[in-house]
Amino acid sequence: MFAEIITIGDELLIGQVIDTNSAFIAKQLNKIGVSVYQITSVQDDKPHILKALKDAEDNVDIIILTGGLGPTKDDITKKTIAEYFNDELVLDNSVLENIESIWKKYVRQTLLQVNKDQALVPSKATVLMNSNGTAPGMWLEKDKKTFISLPGVPFEMKSLITNNVIPKLKEKYDCPFILHKTLLVYGLGESTLAARIEAWEDALPKHIKLAYLPSLGKMRLRLSVKGFDKQQIESEVQAQINKVLPLIKNEFFGYEDEDGNEEAIIGNQLTKLGKTLAIAESCTGGKLAELFTANSGASKYLMGGVVTYSTQSKMDVLKVSEDIIKKYSVVSAQVAEAMAQNVLKLYKSDYAISTTGNAGPTKGDSDAEVGTVFIGIATKNGVYSEEYNFGNHRARVINKAVNKAIEILQKEIFKN
Amino acid sequence: MFAEIITIGDELLIGQVIDTNSAFIAKQLNKIGVSVYQITSVQDDKPHILKALKDAEDNVDIIILTGGLGPTKDDITKKTIAEYFNDELVLDNSVLENIESIWKKYVRQTLLQVNKDQALVPSKATVLMNSNGTAPGMWLEKDKKTFISLPGVPFEMKSLITNNVIPKLKEKYDCPFILHKTLLVYGLGESTLAARIEAWEDALPKHIKLAYLPSLGKMRLRLSVKGFDKQQIESEVQAQINKVLPLIKNEFFGYEDEDGNEEAIIGNQLTKLGKTLAIAESCTGGKLAELFTANSGASKYLMGGVVTYSTQSKMDVLKVSEDIIKKYSVVSAQVAEAMAQNVLKLYKSDYAISTTGNAGPTKGDSDAEVGTVFIGIATKNGVYSEEYNFGNHRARVINKAVNKAIEILQKEIFKN
Repeated sequence: MFAEIITIGDELLIGQVIDTNSAFIAKQLNKIGVSVYQITSVQDDKPHILKALKDAEDNVDIIILTGGLGPTKDDITKKTIAEYFNDELVLDNSVLENIESIWKKYVRQTLLQVNKDQALVPSKATVLMNSNGTAPGMWLEKDKKTFISLPGVPFEMKSLITNNVIPKLKEKYDCPFILHKTLLVYGLGESTLAARIEAWEDALPKHIKLAYLPSLGKMRLRLSVKGFDKQQIESEVQAQINKVLPLIKNEFFGYEDEDGNEEAIIGNQLTKLGKTLAIAESCTGGKLAELFTANSGASKYLMGGVVTYSTQSKMDVLKVSEDIIKKYSVVSAQVAEAMAQNVLKLYKSDYAISTTGNAGPTKGDSDAEVGTVFIGIATKNGVYSEEYNFGNHRARVINKAVNKAIEILQKEIFKN
Repeated sequence: MFAEIITIGDELLIGQVIDTNSAFIAKQLNKIGVSVYQITSVQDDKPHILKALKDAEDNVDIIILTGGLGPTKDDITKKTIAEYFNDELVLDNSVLENIESIWKKYVRQTLLQVNKDQALVPSKATVLMNSNGTAPGMWLEKDKKTFISLPGVPFEMKSLITNNVIPKLKEKYDCPFILHKTLLVYGLGESTLAARIEAWEDALPKHIKLAYLPSLGKMRLRLSVKGFDKQQIESEVQAQINKVLPLIKNEFFGYEDEDGNEEAIIGNQLTKLGKTLAIAESCTGGKLAELFTANSGASKYLMGGVVTYSTQSKMDVLKVSEDIIKKYSVVSAQVAEAMAQNVLKLYKSDYAISTTGNAGPTKGDSDAEVGTVFIGIATKNGVYSEEYNFGNHRARVINKAVNKAIEILQKEIFKN
């Protein structure tokens, strides 16, 4: 079973908004055995949307559209769908009631005509009620093909996909099982990893697809299989993983979970151990803390963190001594270690991690080369630090430092 | 002049990776007057890539592909392009030298055959040298159409777009000027804003396109125009903005800059005033600090921040008194205000902002309803706080709290 996702909106085509909807939808479709053939982003332009619908109808079974359902004049998706289906827009009373109830609860202002017009839907459409917003989802069928139109607001789209679209698709289509299993591998380049596992890769059965996804300092190695016998597929993939793991035993970090989340792997291990974490950040500026707190359950193990961005704040907040800073500079192993030790004490945590570095583009408070980063790790048993140079591109230095800090922390936490 | 962006990779179609490349490329193309007609994501599959190339060639002048140029077996873009152009792959010595020099500098291991093979390019292609990686960019022409193939690694792609692709396109094509100007408007719903500015919108000249982009607690109102007289376009758009601003004077936040960055607006104003900022975060978990530090120049005004995620750390690190916490609970106006005041003192800053709330899904350390968030603002002259309920979806609560904190901070900083 194949699907195409069509995202509609000039904001995508001028680069003002990044399309995050498609990845979410693709993931949910994969889980029920629907493969995504193509993702297409088109302008708020009727002829173009009509063309995209026709192309998609020629290529796939299921067409999911997002966007263009708002109350303002630039939203034209609904009219365009009606035209594509030789249909007309009619008022749906259940949608109007939903709009009125949302209005009453959250807006407390007069309902305008443009809001009422959001209750107009093509007469051939089945409404997918949007409990989080005023734009209804719509489900239309043509021969054996299904067309689904959803609002572009991610929160509303997600709820409709999860609660309406996926259950209805499962009911209508008999789909295979798709398994993706991704190994996180740190500290090996793409070709080095490929060379090391070449014999294993060459011996993989044809129906197991292998992909390499490199990013800053880490690699994702993904195995994908599609078939109707779930149990057999799972054990087959596990058997292959058991063969490759010994080849990367020092570099294997864990399995990527559904949200691509290494922090959750660390968090779960800390929770299991009953241990806690504190974070002291300079050049990573809060990004490490934010990654951990994005997961619910972070309060079980994360005591908190400090962002001591200025030199003064490293002294005032973290009590790093002025002598150390003067003697070794603010970007140094000594400062990274003092930051880690002091944040450990401040938050009374079991583990602490620190970053201090110069992300550029200028040298800032230190004479250290742009790209120099020290990462410190403290536990109740001691402290150590490591020095890196992550190049001269600010965002890249920050992200590499974050990834490296997570890698070091993982090794420290899993070594027991 | 129209372009299509084709991003290649199974990881996009299974939702493992969000396509951020297209937005970057689209933005750069817009700046030189090239409109993006469509963005298409396709699988690592030869027939599909060939079909996408053919479709794009039928519709646009410029086709930009990213992805599938790595050294591993799943990377097939180069072979597919050679087939599309009835061409063969030949060794390019300048690319091989580049690979060898990168290898020598960063990898310090034996160069493998798969790496050397990255120097194979279609004989009809002009190489765009990739100084940040081993996969070369490629430029091919067919009649009046241009095909450009770039690596999918964002850092490498960006550098090639900026330094090679854009200058060459400007040289080859005579493009119009495209202006997008986006007003950030806080605290108005989409239809309420539309109703308020309806007369203005209806009187807009046809060639000025207006778009509404709603997101959590804020709205982006974008005017877009295309034409050959840059000066005339700019003054025309400014005249329209001058007409609409009085209608939204209490809700207008500022203009969105190229990176969509409200933090930079606040940062620039603080730098101009010679004032500093400190941040105390509980439920927003470091996200506020991270947004500010993502901008270079943050060290000029950001003293730092603390993430006091646990109740204990609010007492230990921020010296919020246990009495206040016991009497009012940890999610309260009193705690938000104490956090803001104390972080102001700790970092010796002029402004401080704090968040304390319950992002859910469970109640955590407080009895406050899920979604309750208090935001505190302290200056040397005093402190106040505001209470919100942002619903029951964790990521949404965090993001709404961040947006609201930025809105409040902006009002405070610009009121002088």
